[in-house]
Amino acid sequence: MIVYAWHIRIEKTFLLVALIAGAASCLLPPSAMAFDYFQSLPDQPLVPANNPISHEKADLGKILFFDTRLSKDGKLACNSCHSLTTAASDGMAVSPGADGKFTRRSSPSLLNIGLQTVYYWDGRSKSLEDLFLDHLAAADIMAVDDFVLLERRIQAIPGYRTAFSKAFNSKDAQISVAHMAQAVATFLRTLLTPGSRYDQFIQGDVNALSALEKTGMELFRTVGCLACHFGVNFAGPAPGPALHLGDGFYELFPNHTGTIYDEPLHLLDDLGIFEVSNNPQDKRLWRVPPLRNIALTAPYFHNGSAADLETAIKVMALTQLRKELHADEIAAIRAFLESLTGTLPEISLPSLPVTPGISIQEYLRW
Amino acid sequence: MIVYAWHIRIEKTFLLVALIAGAASCLLPPSAMAFDYFQSLPDQPLVPANNPISHEKADLGKILFFDTRLSKDGKLACNSCHSLTTAASDGMAVSPGADGKFTRRSSPSLLNIGLQTVYYWDGRSKSLEDLFLDHLAAADIMAVDDFVLLERRIQAIPGYRTAFSKAFNSKDAQISVAHMAQAVATFLRTLLTPGSRYDQFIQGDVNALSALEKTGMELFRTVGCLACHFGVNFAGPAPGPALHLGDGFYELFPNHTGTIYDEPLHLLDDLGIFEVSNNPQDKRLWRVPPLRNIALTAPYFHNGSAADLETAIKVMALTQLRKELHADEIAAIRAFLESLTGTLPEISLPSLPVTPGISIQEYLRW
Repeated sequence: MIVYAWHIRIEKTFLLVALIAGAASCLLPPSAMAFDYFQSLPDQPLVPANNPISHEKADLGKILFFDTRLSKDGKLACNSCHSLTTAASDGMAVSPGADGKFTRRSSPSLLNIGLQTVYYWDGRSKSLEDLFLDHLAAADIMAVDDFVLLERRIQAIPGYRTAFSKAFNSKDAQISVAHMAQAVATFLRTLLTPGSRYDQFIQGDVNALSALEKTGMELFRTVGCLACHFGVNFAGPAPGPALHLGDGFYELFPNHTGTIYDEPLHLLDDLGIFEVSNNPQDKRLWRVPPLRNIALTAPYFHNGSAADLETAIKVMALTQLRKELHADEIAAIRAFLESLTGTLPEISLPSLPVTPGISIQEYLRW
Repeated sequence: MIVYAWHIRIEKTFLLVALIAGAASCLLPPSAMAFDYFQSLPDQPLVPANNPISHEKADLGKILFFDTRLSKDGKLACNSCHSLTTAASDGMAVSPGADGKFTRRSSPSLLNIGLQTVYYWDGRSKSLEDLFLDHLAAADIMAVDDFVLLERRIQAIPGYRTAFSKAFNSKDAQISVAHMAQAVATFLRTLLTPGSRYDQFIQGDVNALSALEKTGMELFRTVGCLACHFGVNFAGPAPGPALHLGDGFYELFPNHTGTIYDEPLHLLDDLGIFEVSNNPQDKRLWRVPPLRNIALTAPYFHNGSAADLETAIKVMALTQLRKELHADEIAAIRAFLESLTGTLPEISLPSLPVTPGISIQEYLRW
């Protein structure tokens, strides 16, 4: 367990906890330890104390999630790149933003994001609320360069008055970007996907996985994938005592450079956390991405350069673990990863409040 | 009743029926006649004999409706311009298509389209199935220039095999554009919006409309709007004995040219049916558009040039009926039109079948 700790950059107390837990786990038989690393989906997401969950807030958040009027050009919504018809992602390597620019990195799925502790591929955002605000302002995403203007626009839509009042328990509730962030974050926290066959297996139904999937699960552990992709979301330590909101779990990718994949998959073009920190120690350091519902969210990696699961498995084994896998090992691991697909939340489409008496084009001229 | 018949272009037997009905209606008191013109929403849409409705077909149609892989660039779905979050329209004057071109005319709402008999602003499409195929091929809409290629793409998505088999009761059901058309048309026929306060009033609840709305309803009749906007969908004769699928109900717009609106609203730039027929009699002839849920679908007219209901009412009164309305008449008619908003269908988002092992970009290279 201590192996991966070398690559962790933890901002609070995780390293110590990991070392203690690692020492403790030596006392357990390997299978029991492995089982701890394989964890089932919790019933509830992580919720910060300053933004408790409520149905009303989630309902407002859902409406905002689908509303293109939150973007600069009035054509992009959260749901454009994180479409709930395609596992809250978009099947693209990179995505077009509201200002015609393409994002540099791939739009990840938002399913189970309520289990994450930091956000973006490089973990630079420390809360879902901040993530929303950052997406609004990002030039390659929603491209809103004036929050006050955006607030004025949304305030001018009468139907939003009621929804904000309900969500924030006051008829004078501010229609502000801060409240939008709280509502959208709340909606996102509801997007858990329980019931995967993997979870059924972990919860005791030994027949929930096929023989091939069980082989894949065992290979996932023995090959070494599990060293980083463990826990409730296969993205590192379980939040709670070990990891808090705002703490991240990071790894190098590629861990070993110089493989045949560096060039064709452009693995060295983007240096991860280093790109914002300029700290040489952060070169190629990334938040470990979750694997639930991974079969639904091709293409893979921060740049979407791996088109399918086989490629992603093969590349990760070589670049991270210096292992060349056989085709049958890849097939088994793939089968296991496919068993991580849960039940997607049933989402009824919201009806957006009507823009009052003006066309979208005029509305955007304000 | 005969007044409007001068402007009707009916392709089968409607004119005769209208004349007989018009003669018959002279025997009735005016209020009874008016009441016939005001009709409530039927329980069932019109369904052609060769494409009966089934849940399975509607389910498949819903998935296809949301699937961007039906467009040339993989980014446009039916739902892009006819978004079910915004009353199956898009709030735009004109809409961007898959090939970067903008449509020439405004995307109308698809709600209650199962009550229409002809489609497009000029009525040139005679079935919902044809409408779908035409949208696929249209250079300014889905821009699919090769149906065989599209079929190959959709056939390559394993998840569609089951959905097509269920929809067409055969495990070997063809994954063809013809079947796609039948499925999407079936889904669209389910999009009825019952329960408006107008319908409650028509069905006998005299308190369902406010005094202002009742005044508006009476003005709607006496000013003359009802002469064209009558029937179950406020778009002309009720389908059935008078009008069959494929028969249209058309009017001139503007009926009177030379008003102050011709230029600013570009009312003479697009000559309606004439643009395809080149028949001088067809100049400025348009299908009478329905008015249900009209409060949700600004901007108005074939070119989206009227930003709000007040403008639309004012312009129509002058260009069609040579009447200048007072502000309070406009307000009352607007209130009445707002009472036509029904209960929008509850639609749960479908999960689209996954593109097998390739990115959307690669998929589109096939």
